[in-house]
Amino acid sequence: MQASVLFSGGKDSSLAAIMLEPFFDVGLVTCTFSLLPVADHARETADELGFAHRVVCLERSILEDAYEMIIKDGFPKNAIDHIHRSAVEHIASEKKDIFIADGIRRDDRVPLIDRSQSRSIEDRFGVHYICPLQGFGRAAVNKLVKEHLIIKEGPSEKIIKSDYEAELRELIRQRNGPDLVGKLFPSHIQSHVVERKREYYQ
Amino acid sequence: MQASVLFSGGKDSSLAAIMLEPFFDVGLVTCTFSLLPVADHARETADELGFAHRVVCLERSILEDAYEMIIKDGFPKNAIDHIHRSAVEHIASEKKDIFIADGIRRDDRVPLIDRSQSRSIEDRFGVHYICPLQGFGRAAVNKLVKEHLIIKEGPSEKIIKSDYEAELRELIRQRNGPDLVGKLFPSHIQSHVVERKREYYQ
Repeated sequence: MQASVLFSGGKDSSLAAIMLEPFFDVGLVTCTFSLLPVADHARETADELGFAHRVVCLERSILEDAYEMIIKDGFPKNAIDHIHRSAVEHIASEKKDIFIADGIRRDDRVPLIDRSQSRSIEDRFGVHYICPLQGFGRAAVNKLVKEHLIIKEGPSEKIIKSDYEAELRELIRQRNGPDLVGKLFPSHIQSHVVERKREYYQ
Repeated sequence: MQASVLFSGGKDSSLAAIMLEPFFDVGLVTCTFSLLPVADHARETADELGFAHRVVCLERSILEDAYEMIIKDGFPKNAIDHIHRSAVEHIASEKKDIFIADGIRRDDRVPLIDRSQSRSIEDRFGVHYICPLQGFGRAAVNKLVKEHLIIKEGPSEKIIKSDYEAELRELIRQRNGPDLVGKLFPSHIQSHVVERKREYYQ
C-alpha cells in the first residue's frame, strides 16, 4: 500500500515516515510555492532518510489567501491551517485509494485538521488521511526522535525548513518588511533532521 | 523501549501491537476482574500473534463502580470509559518511564481517553500513554487489518473477547438477568483475531 507523507525535513514528518515504513510503500512529498528553495533542503533530508521524494508546486492563490488571512488575523494559525489543508487536498486529488500522511502530533495546535475535516477529505477524494503521530504526546515523540534521528534545533527564523511557515514569512518580508514578520510569528524552536540513526535496521 | 499494549484479542489492539513492534519491545496486557475466563482467550491470540502476554487482575471495586454507572445512566459509555481509564492507570502505576498503548482509533467513541486525560495520566504516573491508531480512520484500520490479520466477526453477544464489555455484561446478567443486558448494550459487530498473516515479515 502506498503512503505519501507530507514532508518538511523536520523531525515530526521524518518520524511519521519512519513509523509507516514497515507497513507502507512510503514516498515523501514536499509542497512549495517556489518562493524559496525550500524543496532542495527537504530533498537532501529525504535522501539522508532513504525515502523516495517528490516536490509538488501548489497554486500561488493558496499562499495569497493565507497572506490575506494572517494580515487580517494578526496571528498565523488560520493561514498555516489553510495552507496545510490545501496541501493535503492537492495530494488527495492526484490519486484515489492512497494513504496521505503527515507529522501532526497529539499536542499540536498548528497546523491542525480535526476529525470532521479528516473525514471530509477522505469522503470527497476517496483517500485515507492518516496521522501516525496523532496518538503520541510531545515527550513520547521526543523519545522516538532520539532513538531514530540526529536533529539540529534553533530559533524558527534561523532554521531552514520546508514547512509552510518559511514561504509565508518570505512573502510578508517582501511586501511588508522584516519587522512585521517578527510581530506576526512568535519565535519558537524549529528542528531540522541532519541524520538517521541506522543501528535499529541492521 | 518497552511498550505495554492493553490487549483484548480484538483487531484494534492486535493491530496497535503490530504497528509498534518495529519500534518497541512490545508486551501485551489483558485486564480482568476474574468473572469470566476472558484472559485465556486473549492469551491464545497473543501466542498466535507472537507477543509476550500477561494478565492483570483489576480491583473488583472498579467493576462495581462501572456497574453503578451503567445502571444509573442506562447506557454503557461512562462505565466502559471508567474501566478503560482505570486499567490504563493500573498499568501506569506499575512502572515509571514506560509506554502504555491501546487500540483506540480516530473514530472511536467508546472507550475514549481525551487529550487532557492522557496528559494527566502521563504527568501523574511518569509514563507515556500512546495510541498508535488514533490518527487512523475506520477504513484505514480495516485496510491494515486485512493486510496483517485474519479475523472472525460476529454480533457482540456471540464473540468471546477480553474487552471490558464482556465481564460487565456478565455481572449484569448475574444480578439482573439477560434481558437488561440486551437493553443496556446495543448489539454491534465485534471481532476476534484468528490468525496473523506472516508473509510481510519473511
